[in-house]
Amino acid sequence: MKQGLSQPELTACIVGLGLMGGSLAAAWRLAGWPARIVGVNRSPAALADARAAGVIDCGTTDLAEGLAGADIVVLATPVRTILRLLPQVARAAKAGALIMDLGSSKREICAAMADLPGEVQPIGGHPLCGKETTGFGASDASLYRGRPFVLCPLSRTADATIRLAEALARAAGARPVLLEPAVHDRAVAAISHLPYAVSAALAGTVADGGDPLAWSLAASGFRDTSRVAGSDVDMMLDTLLTNRQAVLEWLDSFDEALAGLRNALASGDDERLRARLTAAREGRLAIAQAAGW
Amino acid sequence: MKQGLSQPELTACIVGLGLMGGSLAAAWRLAGWPARIVGVNRSPAALADARAAGVIDCGTTDLAEGLAGADIVVLATPVRTILRLLPQVARAAKAGALIMDLGSSKREICAAMADLPGEVQPIGGHPLCGKETTGFGASDASLYRGRPFVLCPLSRTADATIRLAEALARAAGARPVLLEPAVHDRAVAAISHLPYAVSAALAGTVADGGDPLAWSLAASGFRDTSRVAGSDVDMMLDTLLTNRQAVLEWLDSFDEALAGLRNALASGDDERLRARLTAAREGRLAIAQAAGW
Repeated sequence: MKQGLSQPELTACIVGLGLMGGSLAAAWRLAGWPARIVGVNRSPAALADARAAGVIDCGTTDLAEGLAGADIVVLATPVRTILRLLPQVARAAKAGALIMDLGSSKREICAAMADLPGEVQPIGGHPLCGKETTGFGASDASLYRGRPFVLCPLSRTADATIRLAEALARAAGARPVLLEPAVHDRAVAAISHLPYAVSAALAGTVADGGDPLAWSLAASGFRDTSRVAGSDVDMMLDTLLTNRQAVLEWLDSFDEALAGLRNALASGDDERLRARLTAAREGRLAIAQAAGW
Repeated sequence: MKQGLSQPELTACIVGLGLMGGSLAAAWRLAGWPARIVGVNRSPAALADARAAGVIDCGTTDLAEGLAGADIVVLATPVRTILRLLPQVARAAKAGALIMDLGSSKREICAAMADLPGEVQPIGGHPLCGKETTGFGASDASLYRGRPFVLCPLSRTADATIRLAEALARAAGARPVLLEPAVHDRAVAAISHLPYAVSAALAGTVADGGDPLAWSLAASGFRDTSRVAGSDVDMMLDTLLTNRQAVLEWLDSFDEALAGLRNALASGDDERLRARLTAAREGRLAIAQAAGW
């Protein structure tokens, strides 16, 4: 993964050392590239942990201080924080700096990036990986390995910037995938935001049922189906609200599918219920194959 | 786990050598008790595999042949097959035999067991474990380890039978839990049958969307939320249809919870959406704690 001597000695600044930012720092450190990694974080505790783990060279709570001298800026915060930080980052970044984010929705971020001054080189990013545990303590150098890392270049993004962003994704062990923001947002609404909403509604329903006996019997089926309900609320709140239309459309389709199942069950229609369950099982196998798990 | 010389040299007959029956045979064989294990299965292939793996002493496709001489009979088939087999089993079983099942719903089975002739000793059973892969090939001697194994004695079930059933659950590595059938059925509707219905509707929705790009991006969140949609259709069809009322009630609660999330999202109500997502996250943590994962 080491990029060799042909690559310049670049400095990257990661803003937000949570699960995603911390794991990116750890993966890049393992790859030995970019050469220098600076961390910016609101809380000093994660900075101290990241320095102690050796995954950043230095850390600061001051955004402008962290950005000074950075060739690459990665915004690894919830989406609406990214939207809020972008203008500040563009003002403080050095001329020609690549500005990327890791946000889970891309349309609003890429639209905001289009308005940044011409001195910076913005590109949207979204690595398709994660887990339901949060914070730097949960970070993991292998989190990005083998995963798709969506990149959304703007029309203004230079080819050299796209190639650098692809190299940065590969250095983390990921597989770069170039997509239009709207195409990305509709796709992740289906395979990430809808499952999260469904998982949260499931966990909420069973928790509200208030039946400790049922809870004590909960096995791997419930554990896995409800797992993403444990995701970071700030992150998911921003994600849903900035991808509202696509998520609402998938929720409509889901409602229809569940109502179909429900009606077949309520009427005891054996054949119709079997057909729906079989289609779901086969559909899941097809998706697993396409996803490569 | 070995029960020692104080236990009689019992013969167990497991009817159905799929994931659950095959894993039970493997776990008992590892524990060295019951002494002799006979397998009954519709397809000879699984019998040959189970003999080759050394987890059964002998196998047959003939129910009556398998039951001859068995002190313990375990019906490890889908629920409606159990209901169909029970009268045949009771006729062919030896006097005093314990007759247990592993079905995922208990009310209909225990009601049918109450009608069996007085010569047999029926008790309902449901081990809370599983995975989405099916068949003897997926069986695993550790599947039951540490898991709750619900037992539903009838009013006619002798104390000695209850104690024997508990010892059989423990020999598989599981933790026996005595419950009323109706209490069991409502609890598992929440933590097993509802998650399955939701997972199947999710997999069906995203598969119907027919977007191979979205599929290729599917990460661990989708994989886990949709995992139980891959469960054996025959097993789950029977489970849902024999626990219909409880499942429909939980589906109503789920619909309400999802509609609440949806409305908060559609209206862009940040605080209401945050409150629901936070409650879901905390509820999931409480359930995880009660379940001991």
